[in-house]
Amino acid sequence: MTAATTSSTRAADRADELALLGLVGQLELVAFTRLAEDSALAPSLDQRLRLARFSAGAVSRLERIFERITELGGSPEAEVERFAHVMDDFDARTPSSTWWERLLKAYVGYGVADDFCKAAAAGLDDRTRTLVEEVLDGTHHGELVLAELAAASADDAVLTSRLALWGRRLVGESLGVVQSLVQSQPGLARLVADGAAVEARASGAEPAAGPGPTPAEALSTLFGRLTAEHTRRMGRLGLTA
Amino acid sequence: MTAATTSSTRAADRADELALLGLVGQLELVAFTRLAEDSALAPSLDQRLRLARFSAGAVSRLERIFERITELGGSPEAEVERFAHVMDDFDARTPSSTWWERLLKAYVGYGVADDFCKAAAAGLDDRTRTLVEEVLDGTHHGELVLAELAAASADDAVLTSRLALWGRRLVGESLGVVQSLVQSQPGLARLVADGAAVEARASGAEPAAGPGPTPAEALSTLFGRLTAEHTRRMGRLGLTA
Repeated sequence: MTAATTSSTRAADRADELALLGLVGQLELVAFTRLAEDSALAPSLDQRLRLARFSAGAVSRLERIFERITELGGSPEAEVERFAHVMDDFDARTPSSTWWERLLKAYVGYGVADDFCKAAAAGLDDRTRTLVEEVLDGTHHGELVLAELAAASADDAVLTSRLALWGRRLVGESLGVVQSLVQSQPGLARLVADGAAVEARASGAEPAAGPGPTPAEALSTLFGRLTAEHTRRMGRLGLTA
Repeated sequence: MTAATTSSTRAADRADELALLGLVGQLELVAFTRLAEDSALAPSLDQRLRLARFSAGAVSRLERIFERITELGGSPEAEVERFAHVMDDFDARTPSSTWWERLLKAYVGYGVADDFCKAAAAGLDDRTRTLVEEVLDGTHHGELVLAELAAASADDAVLTSRLALWGRRLVGESLGVVQSLVQSQPGLARLVADGAAVEARASGAEPAAGPGPTPAEALSTLFGRLTAEHTRRMGRLGLTA
């Protein structure tokens, strides 16, 4: 029965991998739409053009995810569709009322989702892991946000403290999205546990043949990391997390 | 003084050419935003993805226009900026209330603007003329619209007659946009007259060394052609123009 068990384990792994790629694809599709809206609302033509390019870039990255899903024998549309409403709640709970709030929301809110996907990809095969990292790091959008927000808040203490508060709201809501994702999609929770085990062994925190962290430990590590990355992002903006 | 006159004429031609490229660039930027909105509103994931790809394609085409403006010694942003609000009136006057109305608006309303640009490009150097034609024909968006609208209106006489009415509204408003463009931008009116002269000579309607049509004749030919193209488009949709 060993062969059958191994084969069924492999099929489950493959399904989990496809689910993660579907989530990343959905995030790129959401990013495309959001960046196009940002572009339409941008206060200057220069920003409008830059955001239009970022938005088009999200479609290119989506195509790379689709290619990989197809290579792995999955249906790109089916995998993306299952996360159709993943950011809807987050968006409904965090309506941004100014251009600055929109920019911070993109940087902070979606940053958490990106970090989650990277953590879940850590235990996957090299090609998928590298693809997920490249796709999620590929926007260069952070630099625009950073420059804009740093310039705007440099001499404006009221804006700075409003944005710090907004950042805390955003991180709370986006950690909530991650929480409900790992609860509703056991495959993603398994990937997070696998990724944590790979990283614990690589760092020497666990013996190479050890059982790795428990699922609860893996999730706790994950949330710790997501929060630390958030604090680092807010720090780069000169905002208190 | 002949050399100076020639040089100043050339500079004027160049300025007109840059203005047309700026208009085409602006139309691509507007198309990017509009198609991204269409994508966000699309009733199925398949349509959402196709429209996202069309939207990203508009950004690629915009880059080609920018390269040409730069080659010709112009500033892409300045040329695009001068047409910043070219479609605002049209959009404000034609709020589409359904998905079908949105699709028809894209196909019919922007089709007129595209045809206008092609007519104005007809007298330009080969590279710019070919670029404008390729860029404006490059969306393939028409096929999606055609398939969607044909399928939706095939068994729905009420929808068909509403869309026919909507098409007449759209063409009226978009011819109004063209009218105000040729009035407010004398350079574009000159290009239309040049294009009409080139085409009249090519077709044998005017002798090769003849003066070509008068500006009034050129505009009358233009509006005749825009209307004929509109009728052809509506016909492809099975709608009465």
